[in-house]
Amino acid sequence: MHNLYEVRIAWGDCDPAGIVFYPNYFAWFNAATDTLFARAGLSLEEAMARHGILGWPMVDAHASFRMSSRFGEILRIESHLHAFRHSSFEVHHRACKADGTLAVEARDIRVWAAGEAGRLRGQRVPDEVRELFVRGRDEGSKQA
Amino acid sequence: MHNLYEVRIAWGDCDPAGIVFYPNYFAWFNAATDTLFARAGLSLEEAMARHGILGWPMVDAHASFRMSSRFGEILRIESHLHAFRHSSFEVHHRACKADGTLAVEARDIRVWAAGEAGRLRGQRVPDEVRELFVRGRDEGSKQA
Amino acid sequence: MHNLYEVRIAWGDCDPAGIVFYPNYFAWFNAATDTLFARAGLSLEEAMARHGILGWPMVDAHASFRMSSRFGEILRIESHLHAFRHSSFEVHHRACKADGTLAVEARDIRVWAAGEAGRLRGQRVPDEVRELFVRGRDEGSKQA
Amino acid sequence: MHNLYEVRIAWGDCDPAGIVFYPNYFAWFNAATDTLFARAGLSLEEAMARHGILGWPMVDAHASFRMSSRFGEILRIESHLHAFRHSSFEVHHRACKADGTLAVEARDIRVWAAGEAGRLRGQRVPDEVRELFVRGRDEGSKQA
Repeated sequence: MHNLYEVRIAWGDCDPAGIVFYPNYFAWFNAATDTLFARAGLSLEEAMARHGILGWPMVDAHASFRMSSRFGEILRIESHLHAFRHSSFEVHHRACKADGTLAVEARDIRVWAAGEAGRLRGQRVPDEVRELFVRGRDEGSKQA
Repeated sequence: MHNLYEVRIAWGDCDPAGIVFYPNYFAWFNAATDTLFARAGLSLEEAMARHGILGWPMVDAHASFRMSSRFGEILRIESHLHAFRHSSFEVHHRACKADGTLAVEARDIRVWAAGEAGRLRGQRVPDEVRELFVRGRDEGSKQA
Repeated sequence: MHNLYEVRIAWGDCDPAGIVFYPNYFAWFNAATDTLFARAGLSLEEAMARHGILGWPMVDAHASFRMSSRFGEILRIESHLHAFRHSSFEVHHRACKADGTLAVEARDIRVWAAGEAGRLRGQRVPDEVRELFVRGRDEGSKQA
Repeated sequence: MHNLYEVRIAWGDCDPAGIVFYPNYFAWFNAATDTLFARAGLSLEEAMARHGILGWPMVDAHASFRMSSRFGEILRIESHLHAFRHSSFEVHHRACKADGTLAVEARDIRVWAAGEAGRLRGQRVPDEVRELFVRGRDEGSKQA
């Protein structure tokens, strides 16, 4: 299952060189991840209410910036769940321009975290969460 | 030469789980990098005026988040220039809590870029820029 | 002419109290203003290229926050050009929840600014810009 | 009692016109308000723990932007508590450049809010909170 999350780059997303200030890409990848889960059938809020987690905080982020993007451009971020591990999962993102050119490629590792703010602890990702993405994979790609 | 950049975590830097929303770390690492160069003797503005670059945009970013941080905490970001390549350079950052615990570790690759917005092109990093950090290294660590 | 700009509130838009960190509303009103002009027939980039301005920076902003909003909610921001003055213009915004409840109401005064960064100076708003909104007004409301 | 909060404008705080993207001023005024209370003897976290509030969310914000500011400039934000009302308070801010020129002037009304996220309700500001600022006023101005 892939999720498509579309961003129209705003004036305030760009820096004095006229290109996207790169921390903004991470904010978009975060929103894309939340949307990916929601589309699979489990929004972050449902996950918090149902599984008692506090969120799925980032533990390891990598991004490779291939082309800069400017105010007014549209980016399509394609995300998919690459793998589940014991208490974490890995999401991959590809942000492409309107003509399909790859602009940014990223890989996130996030932890399925319970506890309280400042004392988060990883927990085993429940089977029913893993299964959402197995089922999803059969359904093929969906449009945002 | 190491640069120390201090951040007091603000309410608006944190998310509903009460911890720093991770894209903010990248914004701080960006400011820490600019400060590192300024301290070495070449602010970004001077580099733009003197060497005709448009900035030093990120091409590859990696961060490993070891401990979450909360509103009111102080982070000390220690940065140093790890290496220069032909038209890029690598900066390493360590963000530590007040008690010295490592919170986030990151590695940035940035390009020495000229051109115009949206059509940036790497240029060879001038020798006099490389030398700033050789000289700097001899002077030892400086406090922010 | 009204413009509708829709925002899906992301996790990173919210603070530790679980509600939108209010400076984000201003970023959305800014994007809504740019979209309003683009829909009227003059994107900010076109205005910069054609009329030699550097932007339409804010000179006076007022916002009244009626209800807080949370992660996952959708806000519809309705914006219209209230008035042109000599070298400035006033835009009004109403951000409403999915059920139509008013969440935030705002009023912006922006200047039609030329010059260079740091030395911006207001210029008379050209007639052809004023006319875009007269024409637009006849066309009635459009959906985002 | 006045509080001084200093900001060094970062590259990522600025937009393609090379000046501060104005929503960032509101984020700084928010941090300045939290610092003002902390200096008076009650950090936001202490207020939450001691008085059971969820925060002091903004209900009405006004800002007047007199001069734009650029990357590398330092702004000194002077804030003071202008007035307490039944369940709200008003804070005034003046952001000045290094040479003392006024750049931005702002006025915030915030509510002393309890409840839960999304259902915040104003509560009477406790007398001991009001007294912090009466006492503070006698102590005179303090430097950040």
